[in-house]
Amino acid sequence: MTTKTIKDAVHDHIRVDGFALDLLDTPEMQRLRHIRQLGTAYLVYPSANHTRFEHSLGVYHLAVQALDNLGVSGVERDEVRAAALLHDVGHTPFSHNVEGVVEDEVGKRHDEVEDIIDGEVARVLEERGISPDSVAALVRGEGRYGQLVSGELDVDRMDYLVRDAYHTGVPYGTIDSRRLVLELGYVGDELVLGEGNIQTAEALLLARALMHPTVYNHHVARISKAMLKRGTERLIEGGVDAGRVRRMDDHELVVALRQNDATAETGERLAERRLYKRAVWKPRDEVRDTALDANPRALEDEIADDAGVEPHEVIVDLSTPPRMAETEASVVVDGEKRRLEDVSPLVRTLMELHEEGWRFGVYAPEEVLEDVERASEKVV
Amino acid sequence: MTTKTIKDAVHDHIRVDGFALDLLDTPEMQRLRHIRQLGTAYLVYPSANHTRFEHSLGVYHLAVQALDNLGVSGVERDEVRAAALLHDVGHTPFSHNVEGVVEDEVGKRHDEVEDIIDGEVARVLEERGISPDSVAALVRGEGRYGQLVSGELDVDRMDYLVRDAYHTGVPYGTIDSRRLVLELGYVGDELVLGEGNIQTAEALLLARALMHPTVYNHHVARISKAMLKRGTERLIEGGVDAGRVRRMDDHELVVALRQNDATAETGERLAERRLYKRAVWKPRDEVRDTALDANPRALEDEIADDAGVEPHEVIVDLSTPPRMAETEASVVVDGEKRRLEDVSPLVRTLMELHEEGWRFGVYAPEEVLEDVERASEKVV
Amino acid sequence: MTTKTIKDAVHDHIRVDGFALDLLDTPEMQRLRHIRQLGTAYLVYPSANHTRFEHSLGVYHLAVQALDNLGVSGVERDEVRAAALLHDVGHTPFSHNVEGVVEDEVGKRHDEVEDIIDGEVARVLEERGISPDSVAALVRGEGRYGQLVSGELDVDRMDYLVRDAYHTGVPYGTIDSRRLVLELGYVGDELVLGEGNIQTAEALLLARALMHPTVYNHHVARISKAMLKRGTERLIEGGVDAGRVRRMDDHELVVALRQNDATAETGERLAERRLYKRAVWKPRDEVRDTALDANPRALEDEIADDAGVEPHEVIVDLSTPPRMAETEASVVVDGEKRRLEDVSPLVRTLMELHEEGWRFGVYAPEEVLEDVERASEKVV
Amino acid sequence: MTTKTIKDAVHDHIRVDGFALDLLDTPEMQRLRHIRQLGTAYLVYPSANHTRFEHSLGVYHLAVQALDNLGVSGVERDEVRAAALLHDVGHTPFSHNVEGVVEDEVGKRHDEVEDIIDGEVARVLEERGISPDSVAALVRGEGRYGQLVSGELDVDRMDYLVRDAYHTGVPYGTIDSRRLVLELGYVGDELVLGEGNIQTAEALLLARALMHPTVYNHHVARISKAMLKRGTERLIEGGVDAGRVRRMDDHELVVALRQNDATAETGERLAERRLYKRAVWKPRDEVRDTALDANPRALEDEIADDAGVEPHEVIVDLSTPPRMAETEASVVVDGEKRRLEDVSPLVRTLMELHEEGWRFGVYAPEEVLEDVERASEKVV
Repeated sequence: MTTKTIKDAVHDHIRVDGFALDLLDTPEMQRLRHIRQLGTAYLVYPSANHTRFEHSLGVYHLAVQALDNLGVSGVERDEVRAAALLHDVGHTPFSHNVEGVVEDEVGKRHDEVEDIIDGEVARVLEERGISPDSVAALVRGEGRYGQLVSGELDVDRMDYLVRDAYHTGVPYGTIDSRRLVLELGYVGDELVLGEGNIQTAEALLLARALMHPTVYNHHVARISKAMLKRGTERLIEGGVDAGRVRRMDDHELVVALRQNDATAETGERLAERRLYKRAVWKPRDEVRDTALDANPRALEDEIADDAGVEPHEVIVDLSTPPRMAETEASVVVDGEKRRLEDVSPLVRTLMELHEEGWRFGVYAPEEVLEDVERASEKVV
Repeated sequence: MTTKTIKDAVHDHIRVDGFALDLLDTPEMQRLRHIRQLGTAYLVYPSANHTRFEHSLGVYHLAVQALDNLGVSGVERDEVRAAALLHDVGHTPFSHNVEGVVEDEVGKRHDEVEDIIDGEVARVLEERGISPDSVAALVRGEGRYGQLVSGELDVDRMDYLVRDAYHTGVPYGTIDSRRLVLELGYVGDELVLGEGNIQTAEALLLARALMHPTVYNHHVARISKAMLKRGTERLIEGGVDAGRVRRMDDHELVVALRQNDATAETGERLAERRLYKRAVWKPRDEVRDTALDANPRALEDEIADDAGVEPHEVIVDLSTPPRMAETEASVVVDGEKRRLEDVSPLVRTLMELHEEGWRFGVYAPEEVLEDVERASEKVV
Repeated sequence: MTTKTIKDAVHDHIRVDGFALDLLDTPEMQRLRHIRQLGTAYLVYPSANHTRFEHSLGVYHLAVQALDNLGVSGVERDEVRAAALLHDVGHTPFSHNVEGVVEDEVGKRHDEVEDIIDGEVARVLEERGISPDSVAALVRGEGRYGQLVSGELDVDRMDYLVRDAYHTGVPYGTIDSRRLVLELGYVGDELVLGEGNIQTAEALLLARALMHPTVYNHHVARISKAMLKRGTERLIEGGVDAGRVRRMDDHELVVALRQNDATAETGERLAERRLYKRAVWKPRDEVRDTALDANPRALEDEIADDAGVEPHEVIVDLSTPPRMAETEASVVVDGEKRRLEDVSPLVRTLMELHEEGWRFGVYAPEEVLEDVERASEKVV
Repeated sequence: MTTKTIKDAVHDHIRVDGFALDLLDTPEMQRLRHIRQLGTAYLVYPSANHTRFEHSLGVYHLAVQALDNLGVSGVERDEVRAAALLHDVGHTPFSHNVEGVVEDEVGKRHDEVEDIIDGEVARVLEERGISPDSVAALVRGEGRYGQLVSGELDVDRMDYLVRDAYHTGVPYGTIDSRRLVLELGYVGDELVLGEGNIQTAEALLLARALMHPTVYNHHVARISKAMLKRGTERLIEGGVDAGRVRRMDDHELVVALRQNDATAETGERLAERRLYKRAVWKPRDEVRDTALDANPRALEDEIADDAGVEPHEVIVDLSTPPRMAETEASVVVDGEKRRLEDVSPLVRTLMELHEEGWRFGVYAPEEVLEDVERASEKVV
């Protein structure tokens, strides 16, 4: 069996062997080399150019450590290894930035795993007697070992927090991923952190809680993401197939935006970092319910009309705070399995703050910012 | 004066102010966000996705430290700051990978600085009373302070060695850049390292000497670079304007390769990492002079003909080992200025090894590798 | 003026010049090379052998950065530089571990700065026209710049959090010390963090909150500290002068413990890591008030008597949670100066948890643990 | 079987289990917590306070990785694990600094392993059916697996280079220890680096070659070592038992020096860093053979007499450059086992430089430096 050692900036040497090497060689996996892990966050953190490809290798590496530690072998082990490596293979370009757009069109659940159960990847898996459907189920977080790949304590987040910290230079994500992996265990069929690890779990959550405002939801990241999303919507409305968009890499989407008349300006603005600015940026509980419940495109038209600008010059960002899955993680306390949010007042505070800290935004080009601000005041 | 602090994974906080902020906002500088610092080396080191943009910020940061330490102020300081930030603005896509191709067509010396003396960048400089021509001269390494930007001891190499080490995970480039910057001084008009720094200089050279075979000239990096180069040549031969190619970013060049019939296969091979393999890989002194002196394209045709394959299925890589400029750096020894290669036997050994270690290569698709190997034997 | 560059594992190169170099050469400062920064924490974290000496250099380094940024010059600058370098010069051996013991005897306030206003250090300061009394006042946190040396946002904690994280390997202390230093400013005479830094301050507090249970108050650190403290008390009771103990370094105290009959066993137990174990370890609010208010030595005698063991075989640890000074730090919010605990619900939660998380302990040798446990139950 | 995870600043989490935990608890191993890894180098690099204890854990950790990779199990595995953990247990205080002094008295070969074949350590080993003599043989580098513990490619140097770099802050020692461990294999009974690793081995040697002048043989480290050595000699001459000195830790030796009239000054000078200075410091080939071959103490008397100073005010440092064992390491090249120095011109250059770079020194207190310099000129 061939073994290859791949040098990684975060985990140093990652050993890959057997069918995992063949999976790496598929066009589906190679495409992830051209999808940035943090979407447009590089517009705030110039060093944040790391990709889904290296992240996938890192998740694979941590999964193997966890499997070793849990003593899992045989076909189950191979399925988890495959799922760890492939968990992001169905990603849209620019990571989560354009996810919603494409999913609405073709159906999220199927979409995520389409590239696993079909095509070159499925062929490699079947050749090795691994069921693509079982791997897809693990990627969806199903079953005993699915939690390891996609759950409250999955190795996915253990890799990305450290990797995002390393490549942005923001120290907050520096969790003790090795300790987390070593402390994972099962109580019945549920993946838990062993006795004495409340603080280990809290530290994981704190890392996320600090990375959110600093990196993941920095307003420049939010604005560029909203621009990219609206641009991609218009691209699909203009006739580009949603399925094709989903399989583009970052390169291709940017070029597609630039080459299409309706989206060329957005494409160039993103390329040259001439981003929209904030006309409105306030806590969601200070926003009228009519606005929060509205269709964002209708709201944009209304504001644009009132401000006397083009509809595409207004972007309403209704996105909601991402779920903090870790709060539901289980930890063993005095021999009993407990949910983290039930045993940790710190976690409860972090959850509240996470909700409260989120902002509702309306964005517009600098040239028309004041007009859009004035018009927005009336409706939001 | 506005000051902005930018978080960098290597130097932590980089403070940028005044006209430097305006330069950052030009499309010419923003384009560098989409040009990988190490070209196709990410095909060997998956984490090596860092860009010319963050590197330019790093060089600016070290230049400011050196200027502070040397006590340079006024317009000279501003010119050096501008030159440090702009030193890579004229880069072709994929960094050095396609340099030769485009340069041959439009003239190297002018080319490098065209984006400084013309267009948006020149406008920003002139507005601040900074002469674009003076900045261009510094980028070319001319004059007292030009050595700081482009010379044997320039801040360019002090940044890239550390940055490349950080993002590949290869520890060899870990030089003591802060010490180097603090020890720089002038003897007359020449930039030198002060007394007691032979070892500091040797360590810099060793870092380069170790990074070369491991990263910069890893055979996979050499092959992908050769494929990219030949692909770009064919693109230009096929009618795409060389000047346009020079201003593309990595995205655009890959898409252009894929969209052009003559280069589509190369584009896809690079995207999916289905690279050519080595049919020949030997020390240059074991290669016949007729081969070393030949026109590579003619040689490729000859081998292809003999092997019974298509001409584009053979790539002859005649590239020569890059110059180790640091060997000519000056160091003060017992009060006198000396050239590093004259005082350091270690450096002389490294120079010889650098030449000897270089390989001559012929590459071909795996399917026809044996045929090309056989045919190559006759001519090289 | 001589300048010396000292290599530090945390801040890389630290430049020291002028009178600061002379201060470094005093026996009082050199003594700090033999006082571990974290007392007995190396018994839990084997790498935690860093000293007050390197920490003092680090605090000096950050103070100079803050002074540069605040534009402080002249004699005030020199006084702050001196105070930063000297802030720990009066420390007892084993850092905070035996502080209380010695202080009770000779008076805390005077004690801390005795080595600044007297002896070799005072002589060096006076020679340079710097008032030892002014430096002593800064070390006590008095006046406008005293806050920088000893206050809610002092450079002391910015160094030790990062340094303790580096040398223990525990990542939680990884704060962004450079950003903190750059964001410090004054509103009137109060040192504050500038606008937009609530999260910066929260992150500082979180780092402390996470380092506390993991490092500073790990039960093994608590037990060894209590043993050391009681041993030192007995040493002084046995006739060794408290003033002499205060000026010992770690070496000397351990040897003194071993050479004195009454404390030899404690000395050897610490040297060989044969530590007492926990007979009682519970939240303070589960402990009877009579126990919390008792004289610990009387309590120990009572328990020992009941358990049928020697008095020195029982240690009651009544220590209270250290104050979290950072909660009182001020931050500018919407143009107004606000206290961190007033604007941050997260900080309020952390304060509560800090109190609740603290434990009351009774410790005894493993051989008699059960007897002591049983006897303790009756009184606590 | 109990497993304990110990946090290490260099290797993160180190898992220790079974008899290795019991070995850690012996007084012999605990003593290593008080022996600095780099002797007096902390007088140059203030952060270099790491100990033989943490280093021993690191060597154990790398040995386990190598054993896993080589597939070694059973009693051989246990013996190697024990040897890795215990390899430094016989060390004198201040690491290599006073080695020669004590060895001359009691016999080096026996000495090194006396604490393994006798006492508490031997008892623990025998209880687990591990032969102390076999472990001692491995520590001496004997047999197939002895090379792993003490040989040209042992895990000892793989740990200390990285650890010394981490704790001094000098980046030169940053080798790729994980790669080295993964590439180790056997050809017959000899430990070698596998095919394609000439550069890996060269990098290891370069790291040592750069760390030598910068850290290990920095003149301040050389001087303080020489002072410590001469002081220890006089201590033993004054009646302190050599065997007792050998078992002291750093604390005890410094206190012993201070408490003995003949050595009190040396003890205080070391504690307060009032070190001797260089009266002579020149290449060995510029020194007369009569001086190089002389008894250093006789030479000191001669110089002292001529200079009109006390004999203990002159120290002649005749030490020779340490052997670069790595040059004899074997590497597989084109399927054949070759010695590194035979295949690498770089290594041959480094060996020459290593010899040439070494200095012969005469040291004296600053007050009498000129007199000693003048007197030395006549004899050396």
